[in-house]
Amino acid sequence: VSADTAHLPRGPDAPARIVAAAVDAFAERGFHATTTRDIAARAGLSPAALYVHHPSKAALLGQISREGHREALGVVEAALARAGTKPPAQLRVVVADFTAWHARNHRVARVVQYELAALASQDRAEVVALRRAIEGRVTEVVRAGVQAGCMTVEEPRRVARAVLSLGIDVARWFDPGGRDTPEALGELYAGLALRMVAAAT
Amino acid sequence: VSADTAHLPRGPDAPARIVAAAVDAFAERGFHATTTRDIAARAGLSPAALYVHHPSKAALLGQISREGHREALGVVEAALARAGTKPPAQLRVVVADFTAWHARNHRVARVVQYELAALASQDRAEVVALRRAIEGRVTEVVRAGVQAGCMTVEEPRRVARAVLSLGIDVARWFDPGGRDTPEALGELYAGLALRMVAAAT
Repeated sequence: VSADTAHLPRGPDAPARIVAAAVDAFAERGFHATTTRDIAARAGLSPAALYVHHPSKAALLGQISREGHREALGVVEAALARAGTKPPAQLRVVVADFTAWHARNHRVARVVQYELAALASQDRAEVVALRRAIEGRVTEVVRAGVQAGCMTVEEPRRVARAVLSLGIDVARWFDPGGRDTPEALGELYAGLALRMVAAAT
Repeated sequence: VSADTAHLPRGPDAPARIVAAAVDAFAERGFHATTTRDIAARAGLSPAALYVHHPSKAALLGQISREGHREALGVVEAALARAGTKPPAQLRVVVADFTAWHARNHRVARVVQYELAALASQDRAEVVALRRAIEGRVTEVVRAGVQAGCMTVEEPRRVARAVLSLGIDVARWFDPGGRDTPEALGELYAGLALRMVAAAT
């Protein structure tokens, strides 16, 4: 514990502060360029205090990536739960919410999307399963639309991936100070997704 | 010059080898986690030999980013030059080639897209101008399509950005060992782009 950080607060919100600090550091400098010392300093904690909560920066990345993916899957499932039974309506709500989530959480999303190769193998297995679940839900919507005759798509899996890809890439360029709001982007991309599947609405 | 690298070859291809080594290092570990020593070792050169060609890793990133963006703009312009005068045909060829380029050059594309914040200000100004030129060309195609009555788009600039975003995001997940070829992805995405602009073909 260095003398200049020993006076800093260590409240019950330390775990949340550590995760936020790790997201900032990973998003700005990348996982490999970040040290646990950097994260501790950003969180206003001593390296020893950080160690109490997180044994390593790899464990932190794993937690951020798992939680980020779980949240994204949760967004997709919540959208499906309230979108009714018609595939075009389902696709519209899923894409609107998924895109807005990636704009709103663009820093977490960048870390989650760009540091997959840095995940420890156990974390990666769990994250890959979550990614498959997200793609699977959207692929099912497109397949259901094709079967019901209200979408025209030859390769549902690839088109579902493209629709999600469009939402994910928003995290790369989204600027909270710019002209686009997460909600307006969600609406625009929902309309584009319906066009991509040639939906009869 | 360390003893264990002094024996390595230093042919006239050293500059190309250095750039390839820098792309590999930046793509795998990120710009901030890469040292000039890492790049020299990957290129089979001494740090001193690397310094002859490149004063800093920032200069290398600038060169990679400028050349990557120039190449991407070149792909767009070459596609337009051979696509004839009809906006839907232009959009089809541009998106097919732009997407295939991002699949084929996914490592360079990742560095170019994800390390924008690490660019020195002079490099960034040039890269921003190149990015605007790319978006501008595609926006013009969409606007021309709307004016000619063969595309239906309310926000040409945002839709052009989305179309390019779809191609760019291929670099994030493209796996050369996977089932998708750059050409097949290009064709698929060209078709999706025509749907996104509601092209009458």
